[in-house]
Amino acid sequence: MRYHSPVPPIRVTTPAASYDVTIAPGALRSLYPRLRRLTAGNPPRTFVVTSPNIWALWHQALLESFPALHRPTALFLPAGEKHKRLAAIESLAQQLALAGADRDSLLLAFGGGVIGDVTGFLAAIYMRGIRYLGLPTTLLAQVDSSLGGKTGVNLAAGKNLIGSFHQPLAVFSDIDLLATLPPAELRSGLQESVKAGIIRSPSLLRYLEANADAVLAAEPAALTRVVTASVKVKAEVVSQDEKESGLRMILNFGHTIGHAIEAATHYRKLLHGEAIAWGMLAALNLSLSRGGITRKDFDRMVALVLRYGPPPLFRCDPARLVALTGGDKKVRSGRRAFVLATGIGSTEIAYDVTDAELLAATRAMFTHMRHTEE
Amino acid sequence: MRYHSPVPPIRVTTPAASYDVTIAPGALRSLYPRLRRLTAGNPPRTFVVTSPNIWALWHQALLESFPALHRPTALFLPAGEKHKRLAAIESLAQQLALAGADRDSLLLAFGGGVIGDVTGFLAAIYMRGIRYLGLPTTLLAQVDSSLGGKTGVNLAAGKNLIGSFHQPLAVFSDIDLLATLPPAELRSGLQESVKAGIIRSPSLLRYLEANADAVLAAEPAALTRVVTASVKVKAEVVSQDEKESGLRMILNFGHTIGHAIEAATHYRKLLHGEAIAWGMLAALNLSLSRGGITRKDFDRMVALVLRYGPPPLFRCDPARLVALTGGDKKVRSGRRAFVLATGIGSTEIAYDVTDAELLAATRAMFTHMRHTEE
Repeated sequence: MRYHSPVPPIRVTTPAASYDVTIAPGALRSLYPRLRRLTAGNPPRTFVVTSPNIWALWHQALLESFPALHRPTALFLPAGEKHKRLAAIESLAQQLALAGADRDSLLLAFGGGVIGDVTGFLAAIYMRGIRYLGLPTTLLAQVDSSLGGKTGVNLAAGKNLIGSFHQPLAVFSDIDLLATLPPAELRSGLQESVKAGIIRSPSLLRYLEANADAVLAAEPAALTRVVTASVKVKAEVVSQDEKESGLRMILNFGHTIGHAIEAATHYRKLLHGEAIAWGMLAALNLSLSRGGITRKDFDRMVALVLRYGPPPLFRCDPARLVALTGGDKKVRSGRRAFVLATGIGSTEIAYDVTDAELLAATRAMFTHMRHTEE
Repeated sequence: MRYHSPVPPIRVTTPAASYDVTIAPGALRSLYPRLRRLTAGNPPRTFVVTSPNIWALWHQALLESFPALHRPTALFLPAGEKHKRLAAIESLAQQLALAGADRDSLLLAFGGGVIGDVTGFLAAIYMRGIRYLGLPTTLLAQVDSSLGGKTGVNLAAGKNLIGSFHQPLAVFSDIDLLATLPPAELRSGLQESVKAGIIRSPSLLRYLEANADAVLAAEPAALTRVVTASVKVKAEVVSQDEKESGLRMILNFGHTIGHAIEAATHYRKLLHGEAIAWGMLAALNLSLSRGGITRKDFDRMVALVLRYGPPPLFRCDPARLVALTGGDKKVRSGRRAFVLATGIGSTEIAYDVTDAELLAATRAMFTHMRHTEE
């Protein structure tokens, strides 16, 4: 068994908690000894929350390192965003209670973004808070949603309107799990790495430019490097601003229009990273029109977004997308924060972006779509 | 209008937040100016969560000080423990979202324990946490549940199994609201004051002994004094131990058997304070049999519990009550913490109480019932 990761763990430090993110091929198969080290040799009762599909693919790898008496109990959440609701939390909590889970028990969030958000929130509110571990199985979850402690579920009225900040005990990202990802999910997840490069890491951006073939072919060494660099960006940002009062906003680059696209297409037509890719193109156009970036940097960043796409086409009135940005959680007492690029790896927050500017940038976004079609 | 309270506010200071508890007749009628002072002259959009009954009785008093444009929107939760569930949270959150509540909005928890627990939890998880204000309308809520930031709802599997620690922005306890309380609810609430005296305040205990007639007649001056002294005890304890890792456990005096009685009688036969009264008699008997308190102190504390009762009778096999203590949230990895009296106003935590001792104490509790019947 390979216990030791080739790259050192990345530390996330927030006022609420500090924890390590370990990125390594084979991490899943050595989970029990890792858990023993985390809990001073005394692992608690453990419950895995996962989807039937992931469990079928990976339960042998997960259970491999556990002695028979310490095997975790599996609780299932069906796959898909529509199960990210309070009804699922109630059902899982009821199962935990009937199985005798107490305040010392530990949850394992074994799946993609939905599993991570639901399990983290379940851990946040079961008996007023128990511990959980992130075991992200998709690229998007490994580079983004498993980090930072944002947990929650959707309401009929909107996504992620219910939730908590609850940091995991640790995150283990096993690169081997990405081998079974469909290509579209891989590309979608990589758009969050492109975003990490654009907002804060010129070296990650250069690596993504120079090694696109290896990365898109899911070569383990290339993916390990990209995941590690992306996690470092997010870990730095989250460590400086756990609750999104300032710096953390830069992680929303591309997300204002991206979320509007997801809403306009009813969260069905595009994967999250694909919608964010379009949102980044809108944000880059807005940054260019405001004179925040040079035409050369603009062209380079647009080319990178399209290289890791192109994202699927969709139809929508640009004015409708702008109108949809009004319901965003990032609006506080009517003020809309917008993240703009100011160069390769740097950003600024603007509070004075008008609807007219946003409309022009959204129209410009659609011109990239036309180029893609040709 | 009386803005100024006759007693200075009591400060609660936890690692998460600090806030004032203001105990004053008429506090409700001067809420808006108090809110302005709390929010630096800029009160946010405000939503009241309340029950139809409380709203019918007190909405005029609550709205009196608000300018027409700033009147809070009322959201309703039907009265009763059975509505303390995630389904109510989902419905209230959906109403908040549709009404446009954002991260700066403020909730008012206007009601008894259930309203306080539900509203505090709703505030804890709506958009990952917004602010709320406690406006407790029952004595039990004023002296106990509105303080300390424990919020949550029930599962089918058990009470308060879902929740968060979320401290209010402030608590305003208006003694005038207690005038409409049914006598049994008043007596039930006073048992938590008796508990506060037993665990930490000999002077409160003496006051409750010497002024029982005035207190039980709900004389405002007497109630103000009792509520203030009870809140001081809880505020001191919670300030030293927000998350129940040590000192806060003493607040559970009488609650181990009390909760078992509530479960055995399906939460229908006795009010919470009435069950706690019986639980305190069991705990006092256990303290006596262990030699922790003198017979004289024992007699005095038993007499006080019965003076503010006697709590209603019920039938249950003592062995069943002991068995029911096993499911308590206070059990961690199999260890049961039990709070024992060691004198008037002092306690200790014992981890070695056997089922046999607990059974003997529970049997002794029933002997007080027989004396009550005679």
